[in-house]
Amino acid sequence: MLKDVVRTRSYQNVITQNNFLFKDKIVLDVGAGTGILSLFCAKAGAKHVYAIECSQMADMAKEIVKTNGFSEVITVIKGKVEEIELPVPKVDVIISEWMGYFLLFENMLDTVLFARDKWLADDGVVLPDKASLHLTAIEDAEYKEDKIEFWNNVYGFDMSCIKKQAMMEPLVDTVDQNQIVTNCQLLKIGLNPFVYLIYVFQTMDISKMSSGDASFTVPFKLVAERNDFIHALVAYFNVSFTKCHKLMGFSTGPRSKSTHWKQTVLYLEDVVTICEGETLSGSMTVANNKKNPRDIDITLKYAINGNRCKVSRTQHYKMR
Amino acid sequence: MLKDVVRTRSYQNVITQNNFLFKDKIVLDVGAGTGILSLFCAKAGAKHVYAIECSQMADMAKEIVKTNGFSEVITVIKGKVEEIELPVPKVDVIISEWMGYFLLFENMLDTVLFARDKWLADDGVVLPDKASLHLTAIEDAEYKEDKIEFWNNVYGFDMSCIKKQAMMEPLVDTVDQNQIVTNCQLLKIGLNPFVYLIYVFQTMDISKMSSGDASFTVPFKLVAERNDFIHALVAYFNVSFTKCHKLMGFSTGPRSKSTHWKQTVLYLEDVVTICEGETLSGSMTVANNKKNPRDIDITLKYAINGNRCKVSRTQHYKMR
Repeated sequence: MLKDVVRTRSYQNVITQNNFLFKDKIVLDVGAGTGILSLFCAKAGAKHVYAIECSQMADMAKEIVKTNGFSEVITVIKGKVEEIELPVPKVDVIISEWMGYFLLFENMLDTVLFARDKWLADDGVVLPDKASLHLTAIEDAEYKEDKIEFWNNVYGFDMSCIKKQAMMEPLVDTVDQNQIVTNCQLLKIGLNPFVYLIYVFQTMDISKMSSGDASFTVPFKLVAERNDFIHALVAYFNVSFTKCHKLMGFSTGPRSKSTHWKQTVLYLEDVVTICEGETLSGSMTVANNKKNPRDIDITLKYAINGNRCKVSRTQHYKMR
Repeated sequence: MLKDVVRTRSYQNVITQNNFLFKDKIVLDVGAGTGILSLFCAKAGAKHVYAIECSQMADMAKEIVKTNGFSEVITVIKGKVEEIELPVPKVDVIISEWMGYFLLFENMLDTVLFARDKWLADDGVVLPDKASLHLTAIEDAEYKEDKIEFWNNVYGFDMSCIKKQAMMEPLVDTVDQNQIVTNCQLLKIGLNPFVYLIYVFQTMDISKMSSGDASFTVPFKLVAERNDFIHALVAYFNVSFTKCHKLMGFSTGPRSKSTHWKQTVLYLEDVVTICEGETLSGSMTVANNKKNPRDIDITLKYAINGNRCKVSRTQHYKMR
């Protein structure tokens, strides 16, 4: 993770360029890992940093903190956020790198929200404080052939039943920006850790959503920027730190420098023949799987009523 | 795994070019996965194939067998080899793709040996019937810097305690053949599934080894083919099918076409400055970890008494 330069440099820049957020403040680092974010905060002048990490890495973090001479400022606590005790009643800043693939897959957001509700001071800051999910459509003839159509003829045998399963698995992979056929659309989901609930919809009542309820349905309209074929939709997320002196953040989209989150590719049953200016519209429904809440079920409805292609279909995916 | 062309084509060639091994024979496929090896055997004229697979993939394999019209010839059995019942007392052929990274890591060899002891006819054949572990030494300045020395200065912080851990983790990665500095040496381990025991050493009594005992110590002598620096030793394995009409098999070494097994890189504490003709000698000890038997402990002793470099060291690694 440390070798994901986009991610780590973004956090580093946020912290070192915005000392005012950290100077003499109490900071809580949720899921501290090696302690790198805590070290940045300590160096930026934090009064004290509590670095919580439940894995064996906590022992390394302790040693790293000591080696680098920050034992007085950083306290590494090995344990689960939901179970540990903090020696202070309130913290001024909660920092965390909680995002999963597709933003939501195996993420630590609930843990961050738990920490926020329990310990964040009324005028406290959560970093990052905004995250958004985006969707675009790509041409991907070559890879769809490799990854999906492959199963039609495997060394002479028909394994198309596996193809059905492969189609249902969102693929975490790096997409070349030249593959993008349509505009990129922000799905109307917003993360706002200052209100009680996570997902801010156009049409939903924020005050009634609970933090664990990561299910939502959002419409999309993607407009083709050229004549091309569409083989897949691609989801990615952006993260922002709006409490900085000026807006900071990073994108995991195909037009930005690649991160370990890459993008999430959802292959379509149809090859959509789309003309410049035509619209592929539909909706995306995301929900935690009822049986295995760590899995994410995605339902995609898409339709085009174009000059050369008329399609309307519903597809189901499962991230696990 | 099917997309590992070297692996699957090798098995395919073994089966289709050696019909005489399969014609009218009873075959047992241990860890059948999608059933691809069973399908090859059925096509080669097997009387019946029992495909044992314990994962959910067994359901797919059943469907694939049916789709391809081999329901009469192939019986997919979902379950563990150690627990299932076969409808026949003996089989003529056991085929399996059991090899793990570093040959031995999370391998299925014990399961193959169990099946052999329980069901293989006296004149039966195990495919493959030979496997060997090899060692060579490489120059790897760039990647050692990336992967190991990185921890000395992580965004300005000293994380060298993680470096110690990183050094202990054998790295499964693809090595460029141009990095090879010395000869490649066969470690004196042989797999012979026809005798009761796995590892045939120069100096060990075969009849006293039990199948679960995968621990061994083997000496090596690697001779430099040019003046260069050595940053790591690299282990890989070859597999042979000696019962074919002519010897067949494949290598997972850096001079062969890459497979999903890649190679296993063991970084050295020292940068060894070696001159052409000089020898890096030592021994490699491999044992299952006592606490977690799935983990493999590797101890490497190496020494050089060269013109420009004199080193003698013992290093410990853990694959997990």
